[in-house]
Amino acid sequence: MLEARLAETKPSAFAVEGEATEADGVVDAWFTFETAVARGRGHLRLRKGKAWTLLTTMTELKGFEERKGDRRIKGAEHGANPERKTWLEKRDEEAKTLGFTEQPYVVIVGGGQGGIALGARLRKLGVPTIIVEKNARPGDSWRKRYKSLCLHDPVWYDHLPYLPFPDHWPVFSPKDKIGDWLEMYTRVMELNYWTSTTAKSARYDEAAGEWVVVVERDGEEITLRPKQLVMATGMSGKPNVPEIPGMDVFRGDQHHSSQHPGPDAYKGKKAVVIGSNNSAHDICAALWENGADVTMVQRSSTHIVRSATLLDIGLSALYSEEAVNSGVTTEKADLIFASLPYRILHEFQIPLYEQMKERDADFYDRLEKAGFQLDWGEDGSGLFMKYLRRGSGYYIDVGASDLVADGKIKLQNGVVDHLTEDAVVMTDGTELPADLVVYATGYGSMNGWVADLIDEATADRVGKVWGLGSDTTKDPGPWEGEQRNMWKPTQQEALWFHGGNLHQSRHYSQFLALQLKARSVGIDTPVYGLQEVHHTK
Amino acid sequence: MLEARLAETKPSAFAVEGEATEADGVVDAWFTFETAVARGRGHLRLRKGKAWTLLTTMTELKGFEERKGDRRIKGAEHGANPERKTWLEKRDEEAKTLGFTEQPYVVIVGGGQGGIALGARLRKLGVPTIIVEKNARPGDSWRKRYKSLCLHDPVWYDHLPYLPFPDHWPVFSPKDKIGDWLEMYTRVMELNYWTSTTAKSARYDEAAGEWVVVVERDGEEITLRPKQLVMATGMSGKPNVPEIPGMDVFRGDQHHSSQHPGPDAYKGKKAVVIGSNNSAHDICAALWENGADVTMVQRSSTHIVRSATLLDIGLSALYSEEAVNSGVTTEKADLIFASLPYRILHEFQIPLYEQMKERDADFYDRLEKAGFQLDWGEDGSGLFMKYLRRGSGYYIDVGASDLVADGKIKLQNGVVDHLTEDAVVMTDGTELPADLVVYATGYGSMNGWVADLIDEATADRVGKVWGLGSDTTKDPGPWEGEQRNMWKPTQQEALWFHGGNLHQSRHYSQFLALQLKARSVGIDTPVYGLQEVHHTK
Repeated sequence: MLEARLAETKPSAFAVEGEATEADGVVDAWFTFETAVARGRGHLRLRKGKAWTLLTTMTELKGFEERKGDRRIKGAEHGANPERKTWLEKRDEEAKTLGFTEQPYVVIVGGGQGGIALGARLRKLGVPTIIVEKNARPGDSWRKRYKSLCLHDPVWYDHLPYLPFPDHWPVFSPKDKIGDWLEMYTRVMELNYWTSTTAKSARYDEAAGEWVVVVERDGEEITLRPKQLVMATGMSGKPNVPEIPGMDVFRGDQHHSSQHPGPDAYKGKKAVVIGSNNSAHDICAALWENGADVTMVQRSSTHIVRSATLLDIGLSALYSEEAVNSGVTTEKADLIFASLPYRILHEFQIPLYEQMKERDADFYDRLEKAGFQLDWGEDGSGLFMKYLRRGSGYYIDVGASDLVADGKIKLQNGVVDHLTEDAVVMTDGTELPADLVVYATGYGSMNGWVADLIDEATADRVGKVWGLGSDTTKDPGPWEGEQRNMWKPTQQEALWFHGGNLHQSRHYSQFLALQLKARSVGIDTPVYGLQEVHHTK
Repeated sequence: MLEARLAETKPSAFAVEGEATEADGVVDAWFTFETAVARGRGHLRLRKGKAWTLLTTMTELKGFEERKGDRRIKGAEHGANPERKTWLEKRDEEAKTLGFTEQPYVVIVGGGQGGIALGARLRKLGVPTIIVEKNARPGDSWRKRYKSLCLHDPVWYDHLPYLPFPDHWPVFSPKDKIGDWLEMYTRVMELNYWTSTTAKSARYDEAAGEWVVVVERDGEEITLRPKQLVMATGMSGKPNVPEIPGMDVFRGDQHHSSQHPGPDAYKGKKAVVIGSNNSAHDICAALWENGADVTMVQRSSTHIVRSATLLDIGLSALYSEEAVNSGVTTEKADLIFASLPYRILHEFQIPLYEQMKERDADFYDRLEKAGFQLDWGEDGSGLFMKYLRRGSGYYIDVGASDLVADGKIKLQNGVVDHLTEDAVVMTDGTELPADLVVYATGYGSMNGWVADLIDEATADRVGKVWGLGSDTTKDPGPWEGEQRNMWKPTQQEALWFHGGNLHQSRHYSQFLALQLKARSVGIDTPVYGLQEVHHTK
């Protein structure tokens, strides 16, 4: 790759930033550099005098820098100008014309944290963008989840670009509070955010080099013609609802976890929750708290770490108050995390999870005695690797595990055979009486959205989204080395995927936005090697 | 004062913060300290080995620190709890009970930047507070002003507490943009902000030690019983509308500048704007830009500085990108500004305005040739002193002065005698034909609001609000040394005044909030000396 690309890329002006540091035989250094078209920042680790890890990232395109700090716009236009338009008049005009008489360069389908963070980056880069969101208000994708939901990741990990949470923000944001924050953010960042809008269909017009995206906005059909289309519909966005015989005869309530309204209607009722990951645990605990009789059906082993332990051992070096106080800003933390190639990341993770296992040995004992099947990932590398490989398979314990260990949430291992009018029946014949069945059965690959919006052929050509190719459960090989299809060109011209948790939405939106900006201004953007597609789902 | 108060105050633990610096024979140092009940931060200047200026400020009350940084709340309540209430349920419950079955400790009348900043501080300190605002949405007090309005102060001067503007915020915020920011700030800070609510009457119930405040909220009358009442109705809040013979016979539109809708309806019409300060200039310029025939009536001399010059010479050392880059945070800038006692502040200001006069000499020449009457404050100390002394008497030029100098905005000096059906007539007989008359005639003292809300007797007892007692125009002596009645106890028990520009709303809300918090938790708060009242208006 270097041979093919170095001559045109023209990396130069490498300069160490600050002082390099040495610890445990590894030298760490930050540096800045330039290419022919961009400025960047990088990180280097030396071991035994040789380069061990090298990260290079692009921070801005030359000549297209964001207008911030001393480049910020003036806002007021001083002097006298009979043609003057106020800020509000310009905003109103943009709302009236963009998508109608003017076409956006980018359409982002999905206005959760992913779409919003990318939209903010593109706004700052001056790339005309419309975000299409089916809900009535920004933040509703959080507000509509089960009522006890709080973020499982801590505040230091969750900042959006440009506008960090204030210093008194809670460690774990309640869902409605994060919903309000996203709504506010969308407004003050001046995003063109179309609420109550559903993307109905999209096709790529090869000849025109643009997408034809049909959306329904407040009941009215509108055709958008952007040059670039970004799917930000949620890496946990497309529900996997299993097909189980008898679902049609079951008389109680049944829904996927993403549709679960919370426990209020189920006091005194019998609930069966199928699944044993994050949502299953949260939903079971809230149902139990509200006086339901709850059974969790565990179909396969689950990785569990306690929230406090994860914060202390897994996150505190990069994302914590102590990290901030020792100079590890959010941006630095993101780059340090990114500086460890996925190829070796598990090596850094395994010892942390061994510590956690030891610290909470009693806790895990109690869970196993209750019949709960535990795992630590196939190579013992724990939660982050599971998230990066498959985006599932774990629960960050915020209290439900004690209920399981104590038998307050009943546990049923095994496979569901069928439903009757009023029960879930396991393959071993066990009958679980049920007024409510919740399918906490996870989500499918994001290219499922492509099948719905564009067509099956495009979905198959693009292939599975997410995963590293680690050849572990739900992350089949061969090795890819990067998240499949995320934040980079795909096998479909001008189609992109964006999303993930708040950390990823923040961090990777920078690089996706710069790729889109470069294309919008005609900077040459050759793609050295598109990934091969090995899996369609 | 020291003799009377030192024994109880118990200042101690003085420690220099960072390194002291020396320049021009003055040693500057920051320090921290404690008292019996609080922690504080201060600033000291030494000249010729002796203390020259000494500032001490309170940052927090011991045992009642804000929950921020590593004290921040967790947000999620881990573990199982059948009595669990979600964040949203708690917020909804507070909205239903506060002001009804629970009484707020503080009611703030007025929800502009002053009320909002103070409300945010009190929220962080856990003091139950309701903000009463007549408009339908937070920020409307800005949105409803004339449409061309942008802040005349730059972004570095304008941050609210806790949540600074992002790095790309324009230098001068357009009014609707600042309106949106205030609205979103109010939401994410979780303020109890009652919109569409008018304060109808208030009286202090001495026996109960509380206020009886009657408000009308969406048409419904509600009685609030707070212990403390804060007037944050705007130091430029109560319009001065002159009484001019013939106002009743004039057939065109006439209104105070605060009610002026902007120029759209006046294309091709004749407009007379009475006044020559900020609002008058802004309104004249917008009318001219929209094709009106505009005459400005100058009744007395006005101080004018050009915006760019003011930024460069007047503000850049404390509030600018360069200041931020050299380590002068907003908080530091506020303290440095506050560290210069009002008694000597003009001495620091005069040389700056002499520089400005020199730099823009041609500009001032042109204005004077056009007949415009200029001044620089009675002692040449310029804009900030005028603001602090009288809150009026100046225009920060953003373009209108060129229109005046060029005769595009016509200038009429003198005194208005009366109005006819279609003209303004000056005492010298000059007749100014008018379809529109705007009274840009300024605002009255905030105790005028007290007369309306409480009664005349209380307004008179409290006396004039604002001004230093400098014995200059509109700021009669004797010398007070502090802003009259602002941010401190007044002659009316439990009545407070808050407000001013964004800088003051940010900075002084800290000290007012701590005074209120101390009272709410029963910390002893003896007042050494209430100011004497010398002026009722």
